[in-house]
Amino acid sequence: MLITSTQNPKVKTLLALQQKSSKRRAQGLFVVEGQRELQHCIDAGLEIDSVFYCPSLLTSPIQPIQSTYATYEVSAPVYEKIAYRGSTEGIIALVKTPRRQLSDLQLPRNPLIIVLESVEKPGNLGAILRSADAAGADAVIVCDPLTDLYNPNLIRSSIGAIFTVSCVACTSEACIRFLKDNGIQILTAQLQDSLPYYDTPMTQGTAIVMGTESTGLTQQWRQAADAHIRIPMLGRLDSLNVSVSAAILLFEAVRQRKNQKNDVPS
Amino acid sequence: MLITSTQNPKVKTLLALQQKSSKRRAQGLFVVEGQRELQHCIDAGLEIDSVFYCPSLLTSPIQPIQSTYATYEVSAPVYEKIAYRGSTEGIIALVKTPRRQLSDLQLPRNPLIIVLESVEKPGNLGAILRSADAAGADAVIVCDPLTDLYNPNLIRSSIGAIFTVSCVACTSEACIRFLKDNGIQILTAQLQDSLPYYDTPMTQGTAIVMGTESTGLTQQWRQAADAHIRIPMLGRLDSLNVSVSAAILLFEAVRQRKNQKNDVPS
Repeated sequence: MLITSTQNPKVKTLLALQQKSSKRRAQGLFVVEGQRELQHCIDAGLEIDSVFYCPSLLTSPIQPIQSTYATYEVSAPVYEKIAYRGSTEGIIALVKTPRRQLSDLQLPRNPLIIVLESVEKPGNLGAILRSADAAGADAVIVCDPLTDLYNPNLIRSSIGAIFTVSCVACTSEACIRFLKDNGIQILTAQLQDSLPYYDTPMTQGTAIVMGTESTGLTQQWRQAADAHIRIPMLGRLDSLNVSVSAAILLFEAVRQRKNQKNDVPS
Repeated sequence: MLITSTQNPKVKTLLALQQKSSKRRAQGLFVVEGQRELQHCIDAGLEIDSVFYCPSLLTSPIQPIQSTYATYEVSAPVYEKIAYRGSTEGIIALVKTPRRQLSDLQLPRNPLIIVLESVEKPGNLGAILRSADAAGADAVIVCDPLTDLYNPNLIRSSIGAIFTVSCVACTSEACIRFLKDNGIQILTAQLQDSLPYYDTPMTQGTAIVMGTESTGLTQQWRQAADAHIRIPMLGRLDSLNVSVSAAILLFEAVRQRKNQKNDVPS
C-alpha cells in the first residue's frame, strides 16, 4: 500500500504517537525511526506493529518483509512529515511497548544497576542509558518517572540503548523492596552526609541511585540506602550534569570490578 | 538611553554578534546573557563593553552601573528579540574577547589539563568545560577548533564554566610543544593500541587529549603521546558521548590524586 497523503489516518496515528505520551500509553505503541535503531529493537525481541518506509530515502535495502507486521510505502513528502529526526534514513516503525516488570529482570550474581528517581528530561535519561550500555550495567530502573520510556527524544539520545539495556519503570517502593529482597546494596548519590564515591566498595551487587538535578533524592531513598556517596566538587560552579554523574559512578564500578570474572546469571 | 526599536543599530550589532563567529572575531566581542553568567564573567576579570537590560524582566537588582561601560535600557519587545535563551533574566552584555595564549596559563606543579582536538559541537565543548570545572582541572586547551569559544550555545551549555576554567585555543603543534616543554605527560584517548584508563597513572602533570566522536585523534597527537588510554566498552553499542568520556577520565585523575596535597603554583 502506498500512502501519498499526510491526511491518511495511519499517518495521523503515527504523528499522535510521536507527540503524545498519553496516546502511547493508550495504544501500547511507540515510534522507532532509523534502520539501526529498528535493528536494535528487533534484536531486543520487541514486537513490530507496522513499518513505514520511503524507498528513495532508504540508505540500505530494507530487511525481508515478514508477514507478522504491516508495511506501508510512503511518498517522500509524507516521509518528511513523519520523520522526527534531522538526518533521516527512510524507515519508521510502530513497535509494541514492552511491559517489563522488575520480576522480568534477569540479573547476574553481582549485578550493577542504576536507579533514577523521578527523572524529568528524556534527553538525560537517554544519555544515561547510553552510558549504562557502555559500562555493561545489568539494568536501569526508573522510579516514579515523569517521562515515559518511549519518548522520541529519549530514544534518539540513547542512540538505541533503550533497546540494548534492560529498562524497567516502577514505584520507588517496589524498587526498594526488590533491591532489599535480592541483597543488592543501595548507594544513593547525595551531597550531604556522604563519602566520596571512590572510597565506597561497588564489587558486590550494587544499585547506584540518583535523583533529579534540581531537588535530589527523596527521604524514602536516603533512608533505604546502605551508603551515601558523592562526587567531590572541586570547581566553582558546584554542578555536574546528571547523566555525566551517572557515567562517572558507573565506570568507578567498572574499575573496581576489573579483576572480577564475568558472572553467570544466578 | 532607552531603546525601543529592534532596528536600532546597537541591537542589530548585538544580534549579528550572537549569530556569526566571523562578526565576533572581527569585533573582538561576544555576547553574555543572564545575571549569573555575567557575574562569572566579571569575576574572571573579563572586560565588559556594554550592557543591555530590561527593568521589568530583571530577576534581581542590577549591579551598580560602572562608568567603564555603556548601559542601555531596552523595552520588553526589544529584549525578547535579543534574548537567545528561553528562560531569560533581563540582562545581556557585550564582552571583550580575552586573547589568552598558552603562555598566559598559570599552572600548579602537577597540572591536570584536558586537550580537545578539532572539537566540532559547541554543546559538547560547553559540557566538557562544566565537567572540567567540577573536576578542578587547571586548563582546557582547544586545538585547531572548528567552533569559536564564545559561541552562545557553548556559553549556555557550559553554565558559566567558560569563565571559571582557563581556556585557550591554539594549534596542535603549539600545544604539543608547550606540554613537552613543561614536562606534562600526554595521554591520548584512543581505542587502538591502548590501556584501560584506570591502569594509567595520572598523578603527575597530565594532559588528557581527546579527538572528535567521528574521527578520533590525528596521527600527530597519537605520535606525541606518552601513553594511549581507552575507556573499556562493555556494551553492545560501543559508543560514549565525548563529554561523558572526558568526565570519566578527569574524575579518574581526581580519584588517583585524592591524597595529594594542593600544590602551589610553580
